[in-house]
Amino acid sequence: MNKYIELVDKKLDEYMKDGYPADIFKSMKYTVTLPGKRLRPVMCLEACKVLGGNIEEAIPTACAIEMLHAQSLIHDDLPCMDNDDFRRGKPSNHKVFGEAIAVLAGDALISYAPQIIIEKSKNLSSDTILKVIHEYVNAAGVYQLIGGQVADILSEGNNWINDNFEGKTKEETLHFIHTNKTAVLFKLALKTGAIIAGGNNEQIQEMEQFGQKFGCAFQIYDDIMDEISTFEELGKTIGKDREAGKLTYVTLFGLDKARQKVHELINEIHSIIDKYNSDIFNSILSKIETKIN
Amino acid sequence: MNKYIELVDKKLDEYMKDGYPADIFKSMKYTVTLPGKRLRPVMCLEACKVLGGNIEEAIPTACAIEMLHAQSLIHDDLPCMDNDDFRRGKPSNHKVFGEAIAVLAGDALISYAPQIIIEKSKNLSSDTILKVIHEYVNAAGVYQLIGGQVADILSEGNNWINDNFEGKTKEETLHFIHTNKTAVLFKLALKTGAIIAGGNNEQIQEMEQFGQKFGCAFQIYDDIMDEISTFEELGKTIGKDREAGKLTYVTLFGLDKARQKVHELINEIHSIIDKYNSDIFNSILSKIETKIN
Repeated sequence: MNKYIELVDKKLDEYMKDGYPADIFKSMKYTVTLPGKRLRPVMCLEACKVLGGNIEEAIPTACAIEMLHAQSLIHDDLPCMDNDDFRRGKPSNHKVFGEAIAVLAGDALISYAPQIIIEKSKNLSSDTILKVIHEYVNAAGVYQLIGGQVADILSEGNNWINDNFEGKTKEETLHFIHTNKTAVLFKLALKTGAIIAGGNNEQIQEMEQFGQKFGCAFQIYDDIMDEISTFEELGKTIGKDREAGKLTYVTLFGLDKARQKVHELINEIHSIIDKYNSDIFNSILSKIETKIN
Repeated sequence: MNKYIELVDKKLDEYMKDGYPADIFKSMKYTVTLPGKRLRPVMCLEACKVLGGNIEEAIPTACAIEMLHAQSLIHDDLPCMDNDDFRRGKPSNHKVFGEAIAVLAGDALISYAPQIIIEKSKNLSSDTILKVIHEYVNAAGVYQLIGGQVADILSEGNNWINDNFEGKTKEETLHFIHTNKTAVLFKLALKTGAIIAGGNNEQIQEMEQFGQKFGCAFQIYDDIMDEISTFEELGKTIGKDREAGKLTYVTLFGLDKARQKVHELINEIHSIIDKYNSDIFNSILSKIETKIN
């Protein structure tokens, strides 16, 4: 796991160049290279490896997904969105570079990520690269990541009429948000890892299912931590969800049911991936189960 | 020309769907379908046609470029950027949908445009689509469109030390902004039209040169109109550039030199493209020359 993280950090550092005008390159690099667990790229590389692929070929895509993740953090933290001043223990992008540059750094990352995939995936066929790019743009766009973020923002306010927002109950809306705001990047990472490895349709679908369940587990874990953790541990403002009356699994069903749901999802994931005997996948899953208890 | 505009409008309407959550789809569609001259998509289709291509095959790309253009308008108008309340005579996106949705609609369009290229270009090879996508992401990103917008924003303030900003004089900075903020989308349109037509390298390069010169002429024309036109004619706030002490060809060299420069650039364009006898290209060029006089 640490070997993968080091590799991803090294490559991210290599891909995030300086340039003119200096501020925009610095701003992009600032958030992309903030120390992090690199869960998404690590899972992309590991999916590629367990399906018999060469992880070298998955590195540009793995790093591109981390860039898209950073993009979503930069824009989520903006004053007009979650208005968060800290991220991973450091001032948010717009606190350092100003709002205009933060908006543009996010914009730039959305295009820079696929540019890296196209320019650095030297040994992949045009067909494979195009498949990966198609997954990427679909995930990054209105049908997934953006749709999830919008549902998250709108469900925070007073848009509920008798437990109904645009035809969905709170539970359905929550599932939509978890699927599209959080699970999307894990699905993208695992699925593209499988595509790059040359996995068959069944394997690609399994990796997608893994990503879906993991994303939901991870979001509920994140919401639990927002209740029980500290600023020092998480590096971001704590207890904001409850204060904002935000729709989360914890605010909707309580801590106990939330913990139970995470364990259920992780059991389901084990039944999909245990055949691969992946220490890395197992270690990621067990860390989450330990932390919420 | 009107036939092309109708075709583009019809296809944009078809591509910009409704969906859940409703607001984000409405917001994207709102700015993309604002009535406009559709210069970029028209030039993409015409480049494809004069080089012997089938314009049907260029339609998804032509529309994608209009989406990217709309994206740049939505984000440029934000309070943290140019803070403009009107666009094409209508309230700006963030005035209708709020800042958060406007930021996310722009984000979504950056990915939606290449998604349309990939999903709707049915008769193009993977190699050609990938080439077009590569041009798109490079144009949309930090090396071109975003870099140009950042230089534009930063050059407005007090970042000048003895006519120097990050190693460039005002004239050099202006050229960088015109090339990367404005010419980029015309270059992208003409170049991808040529690629889709199967043009040779020389033809692709000529179309790129045309786009470069046209973009510069168009930006100077736009800055002249900001001085001499009315809100009714342009559909946006007038005289803001001078008020903001913005760096433009007009504020730097005066109206007369600006007019002269536009005529020079258009003469240079004619020497590149007159061999194609394109009524559409000629009509676009002559309209600009007429309006500034």
